[in-house]
Amino acid sequence: MFENKERTDVSQLGEFGLIKHLTQNFKIKHESSIKGVGDDAAVLDFKDKQVLISSDLLLEGIHFDLAYVPLMHLGFKAVQVNLSDICAMNGVPTQIIVSIGLSSKFPLEAVEEIYKGIELACNKYNIDLIGGDTSSSKQGLIIGITSIGYAEKDSICYRNGANEGDLICVSGDLGGAYVGLQILEREKQIFLENPQIQPDLEGKDYIIERQLKPEARRDIVAILDQIKVLPTSMIDVSDGLASELFHICTESDKGCTIYEDKLPIDPMTYETARELGLDPTVCALNGGEDYELLFTIKQSDYEKIKNDVDISIIGHITEKSRGLNMISKSNVVHELKAQGWNAFKANN
Amino acid sequence: MFENKERTDVSQLGEFGLIKHLTQNFKIKHESSIKGVGDDAAVLDFKDKQVLISSDLLLEGIHFDLAYVPLMHLGFKAVQVNLSDICAMNGVPTQIIVSIGLSSKFPLEAVEEIYKGIELACNKYNIDLIGGDTSSSKQGLIIGITSIGYAEKDSICYRNGANEGDLICVSGDLGGAYVGLQILEREKQIFLENPQIQPDLEGKDYIIERQLKPEARRDIVAILDQIKVLPTSMIDVSDGLASELFHICTESDKGCTIYEDKLPIDPMTYETARELGLDPTVCALNGGEDYELLFTIKQSDYEKIKNDVDISIIGHITEKSRGLNMISKSNVVHELKAQGWNAFKANN
Repeated sequence: MFENKERTDVSQLGEFGLIKHLTQNFKIKHESSIKGVGDDAAVLDFKDKQVLISSDLLLEGIHFDLAYVPLMHLGFKAVQVNLSDICAMNGVPTQIIVSIGLSSKFPLEAVEEIYKGIELACNKYNIDLIGGDTSSSKQGLIIGITSIGYAEKDSICYRNGANEGDLICVSGDLGGAYVGLQILEREKQIFLENPQIQPDLEGKDYIIERQLKPEARRDIVAILDQIKVLPTSMIDVSDGLASELFHICTESDKGCTIYEDKLPIDPMTYETARELGLDPTVCALNGGEDYELLFTIKQSDYEKIKNDVDISIIGHITEKSRGLNMISKSNVVHELKAQGWNAFKANN
Repeated sequence: MFENKERTDVSQLGEFGLIKHLTQNFKIKHESSIKGVGDDAAVLDFKDKQVLISSDLLLEGIHFDLAYVPLMHLGFKAVQVNLSDICAMNGVPTQIIVSIGLSSKFPLEAVEEIYKGIELACNKYNIDLIGGDTSSSKQGLIIGITSIGYAEKDSICYRNGANEGDLICVSGDLGGAYVGLQILEREKQIFLENPQIQPDLEGKDYIIERQLKPEARRDIVAILDQIKVLPTSMIDVSDGLASELFHICTESDKGCTIYEDKLPIDPMTYETARELGLDPTVCALNGGEDYELLFTIKQSDYEKIKNDVDISIIGHITEKSRGLNMISKSNVVHELKAQGWNAFKANN
């Protein structure tokens, strides 16, 4: 990746020099960040707010493939994926901590690219980088991110609050990230068979972006606050709609019915899925990595939400004994199965 | 390691089943833990306290060697090392989040061992496990830990508060973890050359424990609170005394003088270092992984601390221009060098 470019060996800087070099441009933006990078722990002060914390590991070869993920995008996505967890509690993300493990194949310039993506995400989302460390790794690239945010005690949305009759809503559209990944995988295979052929991604910008550069839906959290809708439950779509519905229904001890014709699928996702011989509905249900927000609202909030073009109402919560079902376009009832991504099965 | 024992494939449980299986015995102990494992993010409420957060990655082959680190010890140590960062802010650790990446060589029983160690550490230190995930890894064992704690705003100790004339204190003793590691390394080499020979660790219990089973000095934080001593600066000894003194002096814009004959070195550390042809003082200065607390106090606090057998006063803070020095037993001034562990140089 950096064969023909400048290569600076990371070990020249040492661990402390490296982290200083990488984080020197990051400015602290939040009053709640009392102390960021540079001590044993970060110090935060959220006053009377409750604190939200989530942590994730991203591993080369499991969660990303450097054959088609540019390092800057990887840094950006790693942050977004974690901010999405804070949004999914109906909270406001404010800080992140980043730990990176690097094998010797990565020169300083590669880490700088990752940090450019992290910086871009931090600036765009008004996030403080408040800690982190770098280490060598015998094992390729490893990114650990902890995201922190806050919310008023009474506005936090858990997975377990859905009630019978609640409307099921989802932001944006679904399946795009998965179909985008299929295109990238296809082009990688073509490239491996014939390195002379340039990847053909023309006209696929939207779904490629959905895969490589997802954005946490902080704007939806802000809109819900603005229109005074407090969801009864909420989760982000990381493993696929069906899998997330299972989480909400299991935790809330309920069932659900969704409607195939209500699933928001972008035309490019739809057409590309068809081209690739995939069922667009299955892509939307099981694809994952869309990082949209899935939430339930009281029926009485319907009027407040019905005109928001970026939120689709896809079904409703039922009693538990009804199970989880989808009514197809041809009016057939299908039982939903949680076939979301499994990090242990998908990649071993 | 698990060749002759029961082996259950982790993928049988799936990601959610696995994390549920591993965390089901963990009980929530703190009022501040509003929501632990099982949602998009953990929810915490520290009221008027400030929040302390630190995050670390532990990588197989870099930070630990499974040839001589039992998995249960590894789980225990991974937690302790992170709690130590919270203690080093003069704070009380209360929660952790654990992310684990596992290659397919690890059966369920191996992960259970790691979690036994994590549970032991949590129970012993009254810590809530409030989140985490497991994932497969192409790259051996990866442990990411985020530790969280709290402190009153005015009792947090940063690295940058040391003043000229302050006394430099350190808890416990130094160099033991490093000398213990040398013994383990020696026995590993002997074993590799002749697998019939059993490791000879007799009489080395203390220093082997210092390496394999370090304990965060939360008790020192409690004692300081009790005797009403508020350190002017504080750090934990993870990379070695000299390296930590550099951090405190650099951040505080000061120099220091320490005395070789004041360095707390356990007799077993001393004798074993000699046996191995190592200078015990160098082991204490540069060994690292002792996880003791290094802190500075006002001279006026001397009377309060002088009788604590577990705290040694090893020197004092000077003006910056004097540099960092050690007065040897033969009364010669040596300039200190920060030769602590460098994750990029030590292992590539």
